[in-house]
Amino acid sequence: MAPKYKLIYFDSRGRAEKVRMLFHAAGVEFEDTRIKGEEWPALKDKMPQKQLPVLEIDGKTQLCQSMAIARYIAREFKMYGKSSTEAFYIDEIIETVNDLSQSNIQAMFEKDEARKAELTKKLIEEVIPRSFGFLDAQIKKYGKNGFAVGSEVTLADIIIFNVTEAVKRREAAETFPNLKANLKKTEEHPKIKKWLSERPKTEM
Amino acid sequence: MAPKYKLIYFDSRGRAEKVRMLFHAAGVEFEDTRIKGEEWPALKDKMPQKQLPVLEIDGKTQLCQSMAIARYIAREFKMYGKSSTEAFYIDEIIETVNDLSQSNIQAMFEKDEARKAELTKKLIEEVIPRSFGFLDAQIKKYGKNGFAVGSEVTLADIIIFNVTEAVKRREAAETFPNLKANLKKTEEHPKIKKWLSERPKTEM
Repeated sequence: MAPKYKLIYFDSRGRAEKVRMLFHAAGVEFEDTRIKGEEWPALKDKMPQKQLPVLEIDGKTQLCQSMAIARYIAREFKMYGKSSTEAFYIDEIIETVNDLSQSNIQAMFEKDEARKAELTKKLIEEVIPRSFGFLDAQIKKYGKNGFAVGSEVTLADIIIFNVTEAVKRREAAETFPNLKANLKKTEEHPKIKKWLSERPKTEM
Repeated sequence: MAPKYKLIYFDSRGRAEKVRMLFHAAGVEFEDTRIKGEEWPALKDKMPQKQLPVLEIDGKTQLCQSMAIARYIAREFKMYGKSSTEAFYIDEIIETVNDLSQSNIQAMFEKDEARKAELTKKLIEEVIPRSFGFLDAQIKKYGKNGFAVGSEVTLADIIIFNVTEAVKRREAAETFPNLKANLKKTEEHPKIKKWLSERPKTEM
């Protein structure tokens, strides 16, 4: 019998959206549980790392850490490349995107105004162009027909699409032709397109 | 013919040591190239992401991003678990360790003294106990005979050992029996033990 998946997160894209997108791209059913802020304190102590997202499988196993969950789901649904080398290209893209996310989060949550301006400047003028440039080159080298790695949709496409939403700098991708084509390919994937049109509209 | 590996990094443990330890644990030969600070500016533009470490394979392919390299090497040398579920436990440990490393790096490089003190306090009083507690519980649940996941040395053991060196808080592991036993198991692994006794002594 197919496993029963329940994804628990807040009502936002945040760290869970990549996992939701993987489920939708693979066409695998899951329960998309979105808890309210006021429910969190009572739930927190029941979660293994006192963090969300958590993926419950068959009501017993609880998986933590969004990127570990995404990798697991991608492996299970054959979206982690066709070889160890393709899996490496996907991992390399994930790490590049992590550096970018980290830089974005630092700028976003910085409270000191002068420092925030400095971090934002660095993000926009250095980190985004460098990361997007690298992604563009990788897609050109390792992807086919618009996909990031190989000739099918993988974890890499989802991660790339996701980060451009998170940093709210989709327009910065316009000058990178391979990255631009890849983002278009992802959002036009029929199952992903359906999800993007149906999903709850949230700020983050 | 076996691939020829050349790892390029600075003369420190830093982000490369986990990869060096994997090679040694697997008993696979590689060239451990350590460049001097003054050599870096000339080399930088030849590196795909202008960052180190880089792993060169057969003098042509250049792999970037230390954690992506470590995962690739672990897959190639069968040190990434025996199933998709074991691979998940290893990834979950890696993400937990990433959170800890990130917190350590923030505290280490903070220039504002008051803020540095605050970040260091948070690292020691919150992040390390929480991370070590989680690792201890995972090792208890998923490891056998002292190993972190399953009954053989994997990427997880190397990553755990590595972070306790990086945060320089090995003594904090003393109160976590499963983590303590795991660290001992790793450093007593014959091939790792040999490397630990032979490797260049560096500050970081």
